[in-house]
This record gives sequence, structure tokens and C-alpha cells, in this order.
Amino acid sequence: MSIFSIGIDLGGTNLRIASFTSNWERRGAITTPTRVQDGPGAVLDDMCAAVEKLVAQCGGRGDLVGVGLGSPGPLELPSGRLVQPPNLPGFEDLELKTELENRLQVPVIVECDANAAALAECHAGAGKTFGYHSLCMLTLGTGVGSGIILNGRVWHGFIGMGGEAGHVPVYHDGLLCGCGSRGCLEQYASATAIARAGSRLVTIPDAASSGKLALTARTIAEAALAGDAESRQIYEGVGEALGIGLASLVSTLNLPLYIIGGGVVAAWELFAPTMFAELDRGSYIYRLTKPVRTTVPEAGKTNVLPAELGPDSGLLGAAMLPFFQSLSS
Amino acid sequence: MSIFSIGIDLGGTNLRIASFTSNWERRGAITTPTRVQDGPGAVLDDMCAAVEKLVAQCGGRGDLVGVGLGSPGPLELPSGRLVQPPNLPGFEDLELKTELENRLQVPVIVECDANAAALAECHAGAGKTFGYHSLCMLTLGTGVGSGIILNGRVWHGFIGMGGEAGHVPVYHDGLLCGCGSRGCLEQYASATAIARAGSRLVTIPDAASSGKLALTARTIAEAALAGDAESRQIYEGVGEALGIGLASLVSTLNLPLYIIGGGVVAAWELFAPTMFAELDRGSYIYRLTKPVRTTVPEAGKTNVLPAELGPDSGLLGAAMLPFFQSLSS
Repeated sequence: MSIFSIGIDLGGTNLRIASFTSNWERRGAITTPTRVQDGPGAVLDDMCAAVEKLVAQCGGRGDLVGVGLGSPGPLELPSGRLVQPPNLPGFEDLELKTELENRLQVPVIVECDANAAALAECHAGAGKTFGYHSLCMLTLGTGVGSGIILNGRVWHGFIGMGGEAGHVPVYHDGLLCGCGSRGCLEQYASATAIARAGSRLVTIPDAASSGKLALTARTIAEAALAGDAESRQIYEGVGEALGIGLASLVSTLNLPLYIIGGGVVAAWELFAPTMFAELDRGSYIYRLTKPVRTTVPEAGKTNVLPAELGPDSGLLGAAMLPFFQSLSS
Repeated sequence: MSIFSIGIDLGGTNLRIASFTSNWERRGAITTPTRVQDGPGAVLDDMCAAVEKLVAQCGGRGDLVGVGLGSPGPLELPSGRLVQPPNLPGFEDLELKTELENRLQVPVIVECDANAAALAECHAGAGKTFGYHSLCMLTLGTGVGSGIILNGRVWHGFIGMGGEAGHVPVYHDGLLCGCGSRGCLEQYASATAIARAGSRLVTIPDAASSGKLALTARTIAEAALAGDAESRQIYEGVGEALGIGLASLVSTLNLPLYIIGGGVVAAWELFAPTMFAELDRGSYIYRLTKPVRTTVPEAGKTNVLPAELGPDSGLLGAAMLPFFQSLSS
């Protein structure tokens, strides 16, 4: 057997644990509901039981490099303390790293889930495919997560809150965000924001008569693709907000690659045209460095691409953490 | 004699050259008008003559570490090519580094002037005073320059255009910027923007009768301090735009220190209250990490402070470049 690590993806709904080799090949995986209502102790126990099972499958602890955990934010890093996770009530101030290390007696590295996903895209996704070591990834899901990778490593900022681009203000005095500020990107480009916009505006064909079709980012995308004008408009709004947010990131970071991931990216063709138009309008650096075609990355240019890895990028990124820690220490 | 380096600050009006020791003590300095109208060759000749003179004063080339040049952007780095400098007509595509190295036969490092100023603040200004190695500095002058220092080194981005925070969009579809975009921070927080706002709004006492008082950022600040309501409002607007821009930077970078410099910082007391209020409103990370008092930096907090070094920070930062290059190579 060869060396391996264990990644844990702590979600508000599901807890996913998997083992990976140093080539990022998956060996084994366990998925179980996150028992949020049973409290942190129960969830930690579930994590540890799954880790032990996967370690045994891989031949024991001798070849285990470490355990990496991707968690919803905000987190304090590298201490690995959950601050006020909106989707994990009762988990406030949980010392994820310490609690897991005490239970498992192996090194555990905790990372924000969006950072873990960005790390995976860098080393096993679009970054690897096109040869970029620095990138910023926006994950459009329930919220808008983001992660910044500089020279192959996560940029944490001074207390682990670097790369919270979902809370970059895109419209001054815009919609109220769960974070308490107004006009955050998250309020315009998350699946939640799309569904909310839909509930106000959209008339999906057949939905009124059947009364059953749930308004989600996906059903609104389907309506848009079927030609519904208001649904199309909602996604154009997503693109505009993303373009403004990207203009801000491009002017600040000047990275060669920006990646859009998360469930909403399935609707790329619906939001990408306005996203690129707004980015072109909003950033002179982008205008100076845009590739000839937006679909083909170019060396020395500012490339914006959809994520290559699917929803498992956070899990893979979590498993990468012990390898990189091990390399740098 | 001990080792030294030469810094060059290329401005649209003045060309300043100085020698510094490795303790950042200034040894000699030469200032001369930038002969923009005589073309790049004349300006390069002036630079080289001054460098040779200062080198001779310092005892010759034996102890010369190198020459650093801070230039207005946009620049392509590390190649050191001027792209389209708005204040240096006729200097488009000038290969600053190559031209100077060919003339001087010593290593020359070219850096954006705002990055050089940020580097100086990090190692000899507010960063040094308070023990921070990562910061972002905004320089409020004719435009709004900015530089990002991560772990003591300039963050360039992939082609040297990192840290162009003056072009972060703060108001969507706001005022047209010289860069061609709308709503850039520069259009609200530069000395130029303040003077323009003044020319539209302000009635400075005695100005109308004498007809002589020029409306500049400084005279508007004086009027504001004297109680003029419209002048005060202009600086409140500067503060609001800075607060929005800082909220974007704080959410993206999560740095422990943001520094405001440039001529406009003299009016700190006029814009700081609205700047902090807007930053508090606009960034949950700031709310989680703000210091008890904004005037005293605190460890583990997000601190926003006025620059410590004056207008010479760009010159000192330019002179620092060869030392850091030498350390890392």
C-alpha cells in the first residue's frame, strides 16, 4: 500500500469522508447525514468512526499522512475554531481541530470548505489542466464561497478569513445579506438568491396549474433555457453581479485564473455572457489582458472558467491539506 | 563605507533619486524636473547622471547593491515595461528596466510607485512600528494608487498589475474613470476627484470675491475645517467611497493592516469617520475583527491607519527593492 490521506467534508446536510492517494485517486468513501440536531459530539463521533473505517481499509495508520477537514465558515485558522456557522446551529465556537485530534490522535488540518475546493481545482482541476498555480474560485451554492490560491497554497489572511469574496459589496446599499451588510455578491449570485428572485418574478409554464414545481436555481434555469424571459433576466442579473465582483477581484489580485464552481455553474451559458460583458466594462486590467476567446485559456491573460471538478472538489481539497502541510514542514 | 542602493522615483512632474543604506538611512539625494517633453531618452539620461553622481558620493560601485525604480503604472512586471502611463505622454511601451540596465550596467528593479510606497510603509513605516508583515496601502494623490504586501514582499499578480485597488468598482455605474470604467474608487477618493467635486459644489469664503483661491483638495479641506458644510460633505463622500473599497479589500484579503497615504491623508480627520462607519456597515469580517479604538492598532484585529512616511515613501521603497531581491536570490 502507498501513503494516503483522509478528507472530511462537513456540510450542513451531509458528512462525507474519503481516502485519497498522493495522486488524488479516491480509495474509499463514506457518506452519512450530518446529525446537526444531535450536537457536535455526535457529528465528531460519526467523523471519527468513518475515518477509522477508511484507515483500516487502506491498511492501517502506517501510511496515513493526516486528516484534512473542510468546514463551512467563518472559521478561525489555523486554530480550526468554528466562529458562527449559519448552517450548523449549536456548533458555535467548536474547536474542530483540537476535538478531532484528541479523538483520533493524528494531525488534523482544518480549512474553510471553499478554500479546500479552490485548492483541489488548482492541483487537480482547471489549474492543473492549464498550468496555473494561482487562482481565485467562487463557489455558487447556498451562499457564495470563495478561495484564493497563491503559488499553490491557500491564502488565509491573518485569521483565516481571506477570500471571502461572497461578501464583496457589488451594489452599494443593495440587498440585505445574512452577514448583516448590504449588497454582498452572495445576495445576487447564490442559488438561494436566484430562487428568491424567482419567487418574486418568474412565471414558470405549467407551474401555476400543477402547483408543484418548486422554484429553485435549477428550475429557473430550466425555464430560462425553455425561453422564459423573466428567468433569463434573473440569470443575467447573476452574471452582472459576478462581473462586478470579478472586476473587483481582478483589480485587486491580478490572477491568471478565476474559476466559477458550485451548483449554479450548471447554468454557465445563462449568466456567462453578462458576466463577461460586465467584467469587460468594469476592469481596465481585464480589458488589457482578456483572452481572444473566453472559452480557451491563454497564457499571460486573465481567464475566467467554469470549475472542472464537480461537487466533490471540497472533499478532495480537504484530503490534499495533509500532503501540502507535510511538504512544507 | 557600507553597502547602499539607489532609489529612483519617476513622477510626472519631478524625478527624484536618492541613495540609502541597508538601514534605510538616506545618504544623498537629487531632485530634478522630469523632462517629459524632451522624451524618454532625456529622462533616462537625467536618471543615469544622477545615479552616477550619487554612486560616486557613496564611494563607487563596489558597495552598490543595485538600483530600484518606482514608476507610475500601468507597468508590465518583472519586465519593467511602461504600458500606457497617462501622466507620461510619449513614454508608451518604454522598456524602463532594459534601457536603464543597458546605460548603467548594474541590475535595475522596476516597480509600480504605489507598490514601492507600500513596501516602504511595511519595512520602515506603520508596518514596522506595529509589527505587521502584510498590508495593503492606498495612496490618495492625483489618482488612487495601491500596493499589497504579503509576508514582506510585493504581491505583483501575474503580470504586475496586482493591487490596483484604485480601480475597484465602489459605485456600480458611477462616475467615468480615466481607465474607461465607471465607479472606480479613484473617481471619489483622489485629490483630483476632490477638486472636481469642489468645483461643482463648494463656495469657499472669500474665494468668490478674490477670485484667486484655487480649488484643490487642500483648499477644500481648509474650508471644511473652517466649517464650510459643502466642503465637509465632499470629504464625507471620500470617506464613504474609501469605506466601500476597504470593505471589498478586507473581504478579499483579510489583512491585519490597511494604510492610507498620499497627499489627501492630511485630511484624515475629515474623511476617517465616514470611512470607518462605511467599513463597519459593509464588511462582516471587519465587524468581527475591528479594534476597540481605530487610532490604536491591536494584534489579531483589522487595523486601518494613516501612513507614517511622507511623500518620500515611494523613493525609499524603490531603494529597498535591490536589497530584497538580493536577499531572496
